[in-house]
Amino acid sequence: MTYEDLLEIEAIRQLKARYFRLMDQKRWDEWEDVFCEDVVISTPDDTGEGSDITGNRSFRQYLEPILAPIITTHHGHMSEISIHGPDTASGVWSMEDHLDWPPDSGVGQMWGTGWYEETYRKGNDGQWRIATLRLRRQRIQVEGNRVFPAERPTA
Amino acid sequence: MTYEDLLEIEAIRQLKARYFRLMDQKRWDEWEDVFCEDVVISTPDDTGEGSDITGNRSFRQYLEPILAPIITTHHGHMSEISIHGPDTASGVWSMEDHLDWPPDSGVGQMWGTGWYEETYRKGNDGQWRIATLRLRRQRIQVEGNRVFPAERPTA
Amino acid sequence: MTYEDLLEIEAIRQLKARYFRLMDQKRWDEWEDVFCEDVVISTPDDTGEGSDITGNRSFRQYLEPILAPIITTHHGHMSEISIHGPDTASGVWSMEDHLDWPPDSGVGQMWGTGWYEETYRKGNDGQWRIATLRLRRQRIQVEGNRVFPAERPTA
Repeated sequence: MTYEDLLEIEAIRQLKARYFRLMDQKRWDEWEDVFCEDVVISTPDDTGEGSDITGNRSFRQYLEPILAPIITTHHGHMSEISIHGPDTASGVWSMEDHLDWPPDSGVGQMWGTGWYEETYRKGNDGQWRIATLRLRRQRIQVEGNRVFPAERPTA
Repeated sequence: MTYEDLLEIEAIRQLKARYFRLMDQKRWDEWEDVFCEDVVISTPDDTGEGSDITGNRSFRQYLEPILAPIITTHHGHMSEISIHGPDTASGVWSMEDHLDWPPDSGVGQMWGTGWYEETYRKGNDGQWRIATLRLRRQRIQVEGNRVFPAERPTA
Repeated sequence: MTYEDLLEIEAIRQLKARYFRLMDQKRWDEWEDVFCEDVVISTPDDTGEGSDITGNRSFRQYLEPILAPIITTHHGHMSEISIHGPDTASGVWSMEDHLDWPPDSGVGQMWGTGWYEETYRKGNDGQWRIATLRLRRQRIQVEGNRVFPAERPTA
């Protein structure tokens, strides 16, 4: 790790902070810009599918209507960020999210934990953005009942 | 961002860490010193009022008796700190708090999320302190029931 | 604080991140290496005893079978890390853990908060490792009921 790396790591930490805050404050126009235009999003544990979403516009179009009626809190913890070159980096974050659906939805409250595994790319404008994002779920609870994983680990 | 900024950012991060730890450990004498003497505290979502508290002594006199019987856990996440000059800075933190009242209080457990929007000032002693603190609540639950905001957002 | 300190602080932050992630992902072989071989572990609030565990192998042998059937999430927050010399450092972290036992265990879900008080040592290989770890519990709840501390603080 070099002094230069420290500057890049802090910039990426603040990038990820904006990712969380702008999502939870539903400031979607600003939120779009934390991603590369060709970002690849992989959330197989949430969607139950292997298919990825490509593109920051597509990801917003997918997520904004889902989250619109929901109070969402997403927190990242314990970042492990590595700088690989002048414009490439990767990182792992521990993740926790709390989602609160409206009463008439019948869904209730969701709580989950997991890890983000990400790569970052610095643009010609000198800004780091998320290039790939994979969310590995550890567990999901709805109204206090575990819905993921289906089976508990055994000794 | 400069290398010098990184030193200041880390100092402010540790300042905020002391704010949380000294409050939750109820070490009020030390806690007072994380603030400027003329700090302005704004927590309208908690107090239901627009009036601010001015002064670290006043804030302590207000908060210490309220929190005395309560087990409190306050965590900050995902700091976005900007250095504006040799002795001025600002920052945003995601916030989560868990408060546990004694049984005879009839209050129970509170859980909340939100954001701190703060400014910092470096004193003649070279120490950063909190100059202004505004807590924007996102939600508050008491015993699992949401009490703030009163209305859920709708699609 | 010096620029050199910033490099060491970031290295120690990422060390602690590996401590959490490798434990919660049950990657015990890698997890062992975040500790000095002669690490001293003190968790009196968990064990109800004053006796420490010495050695990273012993700690693993103690912990791995306990955690094997449990989904565990451990998060650290708000680090206060001080560098004391070229190969010695100390730190305090706020801690939160969520443990989910299998249904047939009859235990259910545990949630706790507290603080890690730690020291770190840099080895001849240039890697920081945890030299001593003391976990001070603030509270433990099992299935929403507080089991530690036994008595609530009173005003």
